[in-house]
Amino acid sequence: MSVLIAGSVAIDEIETPETSHKNLLGGSASYASLAAAFYGPANLVAIVGEDFPQEYFDLFKAKGVDLSGVEIKPGGKTFRWSGKYLDDMNTRETLDVQLNVLTEFRPNLSEAYRKARIALLANMGPAEQLAVLDQLDAPLLTIADSMDLWINIAREDLLKLLARIDLFVINDSEAKLFMETGNLITAGHKLLALGPKYVVIKKGEHGALLFGKDGQFFTSGAFPLHGVHDPTGAGDTFAGAMAGFLNSLGAGEISFRDLGRAVVHGSVIASFNCEGFSISRLKELTKADIDARFEELRGYTAF
Amino acid sequence: MSVLIAGSVAIDEIETPETSHKNLLGGSASYASLAAAFYGPANLVAIVGEDFPQEYFDLFKAKGVDLSGVEIKPGGKTFRWSGKYLDDMNTRETLDVQLNVLTEFRPNLSEAYRKARIALLANMGPAEQLAVLDQLDAPLLTIADSMDLWINIAREDLLKLLARIDLFVINDSEAKLFMETGNLITAGHKLLALGPKYVVIKKGEHGALLFGKDGQFFTSGAFPLHGVHDPTGAGDTFAGAMAGFLNSLGAGEISFRDLGRAVVHGSVIASFNCEGFSISRLKELTKADIDARFEELRGYTAF
Repeated sequence: MSVLIAGSVAIDEIETPETSHKNLLGGSASYASLAAAFYGPANLVAIVGEDFPQEYFDLFKAKGVDLSGVEIKPGGKTFRWSGKYLDDMNTRETLDVQLNVLTEFRPNLSEAYRKARIALLANMGPAEQLAVLDQLDAPLLTIADSMDLWINIAREDLLKLLARIDLFVINDSEAKLFMETGNLITAGHKLLALGPKYVVIKKGEHGALLFGKDGQFFTSGAFPLHGVHDPTGAGDTFAGAMAGFLNSLGAGEISFRDLGRAVVHGSVIASFNCEGFSISRLKELTKADIDARFEELRGYTAF
Repeated sequence: MSVLIAGSVAIDEIETPETSHKNLLGGSASYASLAAAFYGPANLVAIVGEDFPQEYFDLFKAKGVDLSGVEIKPGGKTFRWSGKYLDDMNTRETLDVQLNVLTEFRPNLSEAYRKARIALLANMGPAEQLAVLDQLDAPLLTIADSMDLWINIAREDLLKLLARIDLFVINDSEAKLFMETGNLITAGHKLLALGPKYVVIKKGEHGALLFGKDGQFFTSGAFPLHGVHDPTGAGDTFAGAMAGFLNSLGAGEISFRDLGRAVVHGSVIASFNCEGFSISRLKELTKADIDARFEELRGYTAF
């Protein structure tokens, strides 16, 4: 069974203190599906314009991402995002956003895609995430990621989504913003109370927290990095790796321990992603690299 | 063999958004020795004035802290510190400091104290820390803690200290300030390059990092707390628990794994300390509580 990844596919322009590039592959579902595909075939649900570069279609295919769910809008232009990272690499400024075909995205899943066992609703508008969720037959686990934009402008839809998904993934500052608390443990519990069975709070260099019902809890350290070349997509690869890893476990119940291991896989792939500009590190990465770093992180945390 | 804890003993006045109290037991060595004493007898090296309350002498003794190394300065007044925590409990304002007898502190260790196997030079001026270090016979492991004040006003002495101790403990913001980097992994490696065999960076709610030579690394998550009643002394209890735990291992080499477990004990005691005002939580705590939370944290981090 394949994992389903729905979200945005974009053309990015990124500036860091070190470098800047145009016409980069971007978007939440691009990063997430490339990450998920390390663990097995991934089905991508997204929309692009006619301007979408063939080289990126070829890359997706080469990496095991199925593109039959990607709509190419005739005459349309692909979603474009342009951003700049400031000196500390923790502060991002959005310079320009052109939604283009994203405004016409009405996800329509094929029969095969509807049977997804694990579905990741990568970061996009919660209305589109709900539209994908409505079409799933009987998923074992549904995961949704979000961001400050939707907390601010689409809170009602986001709350509807939270009531229906199994696992909500969000970063630390957004969790605090959304739950109006400075304490991440409190934020995690408040998010659980909104519906999801599980909540993951991503903390970047500080790792991640996983919350479950009845006091289930897991805390993961981040892989130690001396610096970050480009954090773009780190959160998306985190969620994508979780989805791909969980799908690779096969049929049967997903335990809290499985979810903890998925969080560590998320941390590991996100750490690789930060080591290179755009998707450069993901392109050359192998499953063996991932498994080796997973074991390395186990050695760094066991006591 | 006992563990030696040298540092400040103070009378604190603390204000938090919830409450405020005067005449509290404070000081780095008070917190550190009470934490260390959960693991076995602790020898305290400090100075107080004639005004030091008998109830605190009694408390130390009841908890297994040996006071033969505490100098009571005739006619002197005990070091006093007064501080206020702001709404988020992460920002502390010092309202008043009266060094009093601390300015006359010339540590003079007894024969028995000089034989310490593990010595913690808790937070105080690096000149006084060096004076204690000079008197130790052949310690298995020396640990020093410090703070921003000494980084700013006594950097030269602090660098001398770093070149001579085995383990340096510091918090995250101070590590960044001292090593002039925004990256904690880089800060840890730069601190190692200054001499100590090991470096611990305490990250509060995000746990702690332990660095050793040749790429040795350990990352520990913090015990999940919904809030912090009073963080005063958390860092001191962290270092004290490390020292006490390591001493309790008995003779023989200390492995990197032992140090990792010491860091987890530090995290555990610091988390208890934050749950109550001043030393209130430490007073009622038992070794069984500590061991239970240690195992709980193992369950929260194993994968």
